[in-house]
Amino acid sequence: MEKVRLGIAGLGNMGGTHAASILAGNIRRLELTAVCDLDPAKLARYPQLASFASADALISSGRIDAILIATPHYDHTTIGIRALEAGLHVLVEKPISVHKADCERLIAAHRDPRLVFAAMFNQRTDPYYRKLRQLIASGEIGAVRRVNWIITNWFRSEAYYASSAWRATWAGEGGGVLLNQCPHNLDLLQWMFGLPVRVRAFCRFGRYHEIEVEDDVTAYLELAGGASGVFVTTTGEAPGTNRLEIAAENGRIVYEDDRIQYLRNATPASEFSRTTTEAFARPDTVAELITAPDHGGQHNEILQNFTDAILEGAPLIAPAAEGARSVELANAMLLSTWLDQTVELPLDAALYERLLQQRAARSTRQKRVGAPAPVTDFAKSFGR
Amino acid sequence: MEKVRLGIAGLGNMGGTHAASILAGNIRRLELTAVCDLDPAKLARYPQLASFASADALISSGRIDAILIATPHYDHTTIGIRALEAGLHVLVEKPISVHKADCERLIAAHRDPRLVFAAMFNQRTDPYYRKLRQLIASGEIGAVRRVNWIITNWFRSEAYYASSAWRATWAGEGGGVLLNQCPHNLDLLQWMFGLPVRVRAFCRFGRYHEIEVEDDVTAYLELAGGASGVFVTTTGEAPGTNRLEIAAENGRIVYEDDRIQYLRNATPASEFSRTTTEAFARPDTVAELITAPDHGGQHNEILQNFTDAILEGAPLIAPAAEGARSVELANAMLLSTWLDQTVELPLDAALYERLLQQRAARSTRQKRVGAPAPVTDFAKSFGR
Repeated sequence: MEKVRLGIAGLGNMGGTHAASILAGNIRRLELTAVCDLDPAKLARYPQLASFASADALISSGRIDAILIATPHYDHTTIGIRALEAGLHVLVEKPISVHKADCERLIAAHRDPRLVFAAMFNQRTDPYYRKLRQLIASGEIGAVRRVNWIITNWFRSEAYYASSAWRATWAGEGGGVLLNQCPHNLDLLQWMFGLPVRVRAFCRFGRYHEIEVEDDVTAYLELAGGASGVFVTTTGEAPGTNRLEIAAENGRIVYEDDRIQYLRNATPASEFSRTTTEAFARPDTVAELITAPDHGGQHNEILQNFTDAILEGAPLIAPAAEGARSVELANAMLLSTWLDQTVELPLDAALYERLLQQRAARSTRQKRVGAPAPVTDFAKSFGR
Repeated sequence: MEKVRLGIAGLGNMGGTHAASILAGNIRRLELTAVCDLDPAKLARYPQLASFASADALISSGRIDAILIATPHYDHTTIGIRALEAGLHVLVEKPISVHKADCERLIAAHRDPRLVFAAMFNQRTDPYYRKLRQLIASGEIGAVRRVNWIITNWFRSEAYYASSAWRATWAGEGGGVLLNQCPHNLDLLQWMFGLPVRVRAFCRFGRYHEIEVEDDVTAYLELAGGASGVFVTTTGEAPGTNRLEIAAENGRIVYEDDRIQYLRNATPASEFSRTTTEAFARPDTVAELITAPDHGGQHNEILQNFTDAILEGAPLIAPAAEGARSVELANAMLLSTWLDQTVELPLDAALYERLLQQRAARSTRQKRVGAPAPVTDFAKSFGR
């Protein structure tokens, strides 16, 4: 195979963005040959491509080697399973599924090791997060003691939520900011620090918008290894913040505003504490500033990596199976709020699915759906 | 009365610092005439002053009009009550008492309105915190939505904790970082935002030091008016952080590193959210930078204000009765941890006192007390 023939399922904001980039020739050896969407008007935008009214038709068309799933979230699971069973390579948008049990079903369908199964965690291509991960994994900063991530620059207007009936409903989207905007951040969190062992979260539902799902979250985390953590997110704040602070034995790291500041201790904190004879002294520090020229290849790099994995066996940046972790973490935050108690991980997947289905079934909120909002500035939506 | 004759009870780090400043003539019309301490060696440092081996003797000496209480925490209550009942003006170090019930007893002893009863909340004199308070109280920043205060620059060594047997024990000090270092921050928090209505805290006991009390705290707060909050503190981190972020309708404020950054929204966030037709737009912002020449008069300003209040009726910067709030907040964080649940305010004072006494009674930890640590750098201990 010299080229990968790709079909895109779902031509909303993300599917349309990926289609445009591939058609512009940004991805070597990846050819967009077919699309599917429920909306004929969206299909009509791609007269040069084979188009289908359903994912099933696309999957069985014989026109594609691989599928990119960019539908509403629940369909990631059903379409993903069908595509894998049909022998297609699969790249799934985040979140890979809405809840842990669906993640397990989806991942279990990946039985053929020759099939590449990847997830769109494009922020893993960002040199800043790569550097942070390397500082932690290499032991450079020593044991991590505390993490505080304020990621509140996901502002969304009422017009955004009104743009589609499925958005921000339990039945249609399966969650709010944790399922739509934060999968990236939750993935990076587990990618850098591992999955927390315990979560106590305080989600608020429709705090800032006329929606039934969460649009504001504060979570306390206990990480493997004993570190404590705070994760705060919302779609209701302007201007919002993206600041990640890591307190570790060998110093303190702050990532914010396109720079990583590292205050390195001359002596590790706990060793200094044990050995100094002074009551009020603290270790000397040296300041280091780490920057990068840009934020990496992002979506295009994941598309290229997916293509290279199919054609040459390149290692995946984001195997889909790893996408289950950010879903489990998002689920844990919601479950902790619903139960009003601390939740241990691994999460009880069946319990979560049952409670989510109850909410989907009894949803009585009539969502006010207006005219589709313009998406000309969708590129601005990719918060870092 | 032309001058106030002051006695200091307790000549430890704080009492000694105040004595030196008053003897240096820094406080107009305040004369240090007497001191008391259990340790004769400390009394011997002040041969020019009347000295007493007990607070009772100092209080009944007739040599003083006012007393500054800088003893270990539990004694603030007992000495304060005796001094007020003896007709003395009282300035009490923070915390005013160890727990809410003691605060109530102490404040109830202030029956004579002619007596000035103040607390040493010197950080209320800091122009930065005054400016923050004014930005909130004036309505300039609009409704507060979220607060995140990381105040982890209270690093203390093992030598600090080993310097006195009473330190960092339930029986001797009644708590750790929340009772010793953080009363300032908890007071500023309630001074700016009001007392929270609900607290869920995660204290760790002896996480970083060989002590039985808390030296690491992460607390989730629900503020009056609906804002959410996070408060994080520890004595175990180096270099540590002091960063206060306030997300409000009219923009975002960050106080850190001797500057207040205000990103002001051109349109309030919720109004923008409701009225824009765009899905991914956000309000324009204007950046303002607020600085101050210094951090105010601090301890000396409180001492001067106390003196002026006695002589001229000047309004107090920090009436002692307001000191009950930071104690209640500290107690709530410990109680939430002990009960492993959310605690509503007002706090159940009797329950807290009972649980604290249980811990004091069953304390089995043998504290390793070494030689007194040098205090030559005590001035460095006043974190901001």
